[in-house]
Amino acid sequence: MMENICQLPYWQDLTDEEKHLVRDNAYIRHFEQGEILYGKCSFCLGMFRVLCGQVRAYILSSEGREITLFHLPVGDNCILSASCVLSQLSFESHLMAEQPTDVLVVPAEIFGRLCDSNVLVRCFSYELATKRFSTVMFVMQQILFYRMDKRIASFLIQKMQITGKTEIFITQEELAKQVNSAREVVARILKKFAAEELVNNKRGIITILQPDGLLRICEK
Amino acid sequence: MMENICQLPYWQDLTDEEKHLVRDNAYIRHFEQGEILYGKCSFCLGMFRVLCGQVRAYILSSEGREITLFHLPVGDNCILSASCVLSQLSFESHLMAEQPTDVLVVPAEIFGRLCDSNVLVRCFSYELATKRFSTVMFVMQQILFYRMDKRIASFLIQKMQITGKTEIFITQEELAKQVNSAREVVARILKKFAAEELVNNKRGIITILQPDGLLRICEK
Repeated sequence: MMENICQLPYWQDLTDEEKHLVRDNAYIRHFEQGEILYGKCSFCLGMFRVLCGQVRAYILSSEGREITLFHLPVGDNCILSASCVLSQLSFESHLMAEQPTDVLVVPAEIFGRLCDSNVLVRCFSYELATKRFSTVMFVMQQILFYRMDKRIASFLIQKMQITGKTEIFITQEELAKQVNSAREVVARILKKFAAEELVNNKRGIITILQPDGLLRICEK
Repeated sequence: MMENICQLPYWQDLTDEEKHLVRDNAYIRHFEQGEILYGKCSFCLGMFRVLCGQVRAYILSSEGREITLFHLPVGDNCILSASCVLSQLSFESHLMAEQPTDVLVVPAEIFGRLCDSNVLVRCFSYELATKRFSTVMFVMQQILFYRMDKRIASFLIQKMQITGKTEIFITQEELAKQVNSAREVVARILKKFAAEELVNNKRGIITILQPDGLLRICEK
């Protein structure tokens, strides 16, 4: 237990008094596979560190599907579960044990006191929150743009099927009009397709390199 | 100018040396209405504070529409424009002057040095980033769930038109099946509708209070 406490990323920054506070109040909690660590209806757990197993963070889509935001493997720290402590952090997500999981919990009330008294702990918390949000934003943007990926892939495949050629003569502006989007968005998606070696982009010509890859996107 | 510099939220936390650094390098920059302060292709401006005018943050939707994330009125500070400084902050957004706008800029390189040398500045930055992200996440979730709002509103209106009654006898589970969603999502949206006094929810009965309000959601 003490060994785990010493591995908290902010341990060295604590005063002796703060160290005592953590030592006296932190505890290890076990979650079964599939058990919810934190969600809309649960209480504010506090900050935790994954000791064994793995935790998954997700939100529910409008269709009620789970959209995975990120995974927390052994050694990772979770701040979302202490959202009651950080006033700026209001974000509705769920945390679930993906495997039988042990976590070291610093209870919300204690962690709140550390954040108040120690700027280094506060800084650590907000830095971690910013990092997680960056990851989450990436996933959210992927979802928002997902439909357009599909639309562009299927437009290219259709063109290829009609002309029988892998070279498609179209500018990004024309393509944007065809799929009801903006040039900037089309440019971004084509760049992504090129990075995945699905297409090759030249001015006014898109060459399909992997029709199967594009088809997979259409069928997703 | 000096008067503006003293109003930086972290000014009192700086050492004399750091204050000199800011004083020697901060500058006021004017942006015309519609001008881009920060975007994908622009350089990393640094942290800025709005002195007059207003700045709007937005991302582009997959259809190329601008989705407004938040506004920065006079006195607000922007950290997104210093994303090169905070390694955790990777998020593609645009900032535009909504009116003729003056901002006080602390250049990225200088602001980066302050973040390195002063934990209070670093803490301020990450706290602000967390706050902005919370706002942004709220908008993103609204967008993701937007379609389902519409679907449920139009389901309720249709039922009312068929039966000629404002009372609809359906459980949240049944409704979720009808609109291809999950009970949890339906519950959330009905709760929102109730808060807006569009409907009244009882176990197994949804009563439409304002058909016009629901119609407006359908037509959005």
